[in-house]
Amino acid sequence: MARGFELAAQGPVTGGNPQVGCVLLDDTGRIVAEGWHHGAGTAHAEVDALSKVADRPDGARGLTAVVTLEPCNHVGRTGPCSVALLEAGVARVVYSLSDPGAASGGGAARLREGGVEVIGGVLADEAELFLHEWLASVRRGRPWVTVKWASTLDGRAAASDGTSQWITGTAARQRVHEQRAASDAILVGTGTVLADNPSLTARGDGGELLEHQPIPVVVGEREIPADAALRRHPAGLIEAGSRDLASLLSELNRRGLRRVYVEGGPTLASAIIAAGLADAFSIYLAPALLGGDKLALGELGIPTIAQARRLRIDSIEQLGDDLLILATPRASSVPVPSGGRHSLTEGI
Amino acid sequence: MARGFELAAQGPVTGGNPQVGCVLLDDTGRIVAEGWHHGAGTAHAEVDALSKVADRPDGARGLTAVVTLEPCNHVGRTGPCSVALLEAGVARVVYSLSDPGAASGGGAARLREGGVEVIGGVLADEAELFLHEWLASVRRGRPWVTVKWASTLDGRAAASDGTSQWITGTAARQRVHEQRAASDAILVGTGTVLADNPSLTARGDGGELLEHQPIPVVVGEREIPADAALRRHPAGLIEAGSRDLASLLSELNRRGLRRVYVEGGPTLASAIIAAGLADAFSIYLAPALLGGDKLALGELGIPTIAQARRLRIDSIEQLGDDLLILATPRASSVPVPSGGRHSLTEGI
Ligand SMILES: NC(=O)c1ccc[n+]([C@@H]2O[C@H](COP(=O)([O-])OP(=O)(O)OC[C@H]3O[C@@H](n4cnc5c(N)ncnc54)[C@H](OP(=O)(O)O)[C@@H]3O)[C@@H](O)[C@H]2O)c1
Ligand SMILES: NC(=O)c1ccc[n+]([C@@H]2O[C@H](COP(=O)([O-])OP(=O)(O)OC[C@H]3O[C@@H](n4cnc5c(N)ncnc54)[C@H](OP(=O)(O)O)[C@@H]3O)[C@@H](O)[C@H]2O)c1
Repeated sequence: MARGFELAAQGPVTGGNPQVGCVLLDDTGRIVAEGWHHGAGTAHAEVDALSKVADRPDGARGLTAVVTLEPCNHVGRTGPCSVALLEAGVARVVYSLSDPGAASGGGAARLREGGVEVIGGVLADEAELFLHEWLASVRRGRPWVTVKWASTLDGRAAASDGTSQWITGTAARQRVHEQRAASDAILVGTGTVLADNPSLTARGDGGELLEHQPIPVVVGEREIPADAALRRHPAGLIEAGSRDLASLLSELNRRGLRRVYVEGGPTLASAIIAAGLADAFSIYLAPALLGGDKLALGELGIPTIAQARRLRIDSIEQLGDDLLILATPRASSVPVPSGGRHSLTEGI
Repeated sequence: MARGFELAAQGPVTGGNPQVGCVLLDDTGRIVAEGWHHGAGTAHAEVDALSKVADRPDGARGLTAVVTLEPCNHVGRTGPCSVALLEAGVARVVYSLSDPGAASGGGAARLREGGVEVIGGVLADEAELFLHEWLASVRRGRPWVTVKWASTLDGRAAASDGTSQWITGTAARQRVHEQRAASDAILVGTGTVLADNPSLTARGDGGELLEHQPIPVVVGEREIPADAALRRHPAGLIEAGSRDLASLLSELNRRGLRRVYVEGGPTLASAIIAAGLADAFSIYLAPALLGGDKLALGELGIPTIAQARRLRIDSIEQLGDDLLILATPRASSVPVPSGGRHSLTEGI
């Protein structure tokens, strides 16, 4: 199973489908074939592994399939894996987590009906952790939302005259591009687009476009100019045309956009936090002070200290002169296992 | 000389006098006696060391005195050390830094005139670092000023209704008490006294008063109430009765208060930073978000990003759930040596 996770990790983080790995073992426990999911539209991990035993005399007959997620039972762009395993004559299937998808679940039952021995729940906690963003997205019907901002140590995102380039240094800005590339969509408010006309592409050290480009989503009622840089974004552009965050997020989830990276500005970021929709925070702190009224976060609707939004700091990293603090909400509503990053029992 | 610094460090950090250590060596380089300065009003390090060879047949005759600061030449509450060393018949004096005091300097010259071999400048960089607060205070005629605040990650010092107890946890609050105890004076604005009626004593884990209590200084034009807790402070109370920070600081320095710890509130802290009077920052960050208008720092008079006050982060420490960031200004006006914590040549 551990090898399965290693294989799974070779697939893309982004996209509508989870990262899944599959190992085929013979009677002696020897690995006969390995497979993983290479991204939406390509073979699932099980089918990828099965394809590699095609030239074996018995094919997969009698083998044990170890899969990091319950084999799916649903006809999408590829056939159901439960059927593929049945037809290949696999004797036993071992998996970690049940597939939480309404349409895709039920693979284990289908395999059992077909006479295959099925063992679920192996290393389930590890799988929860490994897939926590994808699982949260499928279970809650909205994407995993990471809110990012860059500020000085006194919480300012810009100077009084609105200038903010560059609060943070090169290393921090490069990390932002990597975080973009690990997302399915980037959210930004109309205010930021109108003020900064950002391109929001994910770029490498040399300014070159990275392979994966998340789609930019502009949130707000105003239209953005016909010549906005965003209109030339390689992944296209979604204009929400509204401030309704909850329905926007479910719509994005329906489109398979499961990891959303919120890049501000302050009004949008604050609205998302105030609505309890932030699952994680990437806070870049520059070793500087600015004072003034250009705050990284505005109003959160918190009247008194006992209601402060308490965070758990998951890591602190020095990036050049800057700090990157990764944090998650405490008392989160995101169901993740006991070994995971959140805990429901932890008070404020 | 290294042993001298160890001895010096045994003396009190606080108070008008520097920490100084002295070692007496014989011809073979063997340590014959050690001394250090135990605090204002007690013997200087040299005299302390000399007192320990009183029962030697020759006393200090022919010995070498290694001192971490040039022996003083001034009659304060104790006689000049230069004279004490001369009279004891010391053959050679080795010291690190020249005494920057107008009244106390000149000891080396006096010793040379008396026929003693004098070698200065040994480990001078280490001495600069070791005594940087005291040296800055003597050279500039104003105390070393550390500005402290506690805020959430979004830079708020209180919730909208003004509640702020407790933004940070026990470990952070305990560290504040230790920082108080390592200071000569605590500065606080009239606004904080009127709003919070703080006691500003330095207390231990169990709430007991620590041995050294810095004197509280209330800054601002308003008078504080007759029954303010500060009026019962064990170290007394200074009411500035004015907002003139520069003249207040020179007055404190004249009184031998060389390390000032600024505990806020936001208006006073911002005024001190805006005036370029902050030598160091102790920023306590609680892993929480508050939003709203109760900012840890207010207006700093910085119009544009190029004029941001850039800091150098000297350390980051986890205190319970909180972070303590110790930082110093870049492009500081504090003259400290190349090996030290500041550099004049470093750009913004
Ligand atoms: N340092 C940083 O990390 C950072 C990052 C981004 C931006 N910035 C700076 O932030 C400034 C822009 O600030 P901003 O706050 O105006 O930008 P913003 O948050 O990007 O845009 C605010 C606008 O978003 C729309 N909106 C969408 N959903 C909303 C909701 N649920 N509630 C309220 N409004 C919603 C509203 O516009 P409609 O009227 O169109 O609905 C609102 O006026 C720029 O100067 C930019 O440079 C800094
Ligand atoms: N989280 C924290 O770290 C922290 C720390 C301390 C306080 N606080 C909170 O801060 C709040 C009080 O805020 P505040 O800003 O009113 O307090 P403040 O900074 O303590 O006091 C402000 C007052 O200081 C005087 N002052 C002295 N020198 C000044 C100068 N150079 N420029 C301007 N004013 C000067 C002025 O009063 P005069 O009219 O008397 O001259 C001014 O109104 C309280 O609610 C307290 O709980 C938080």
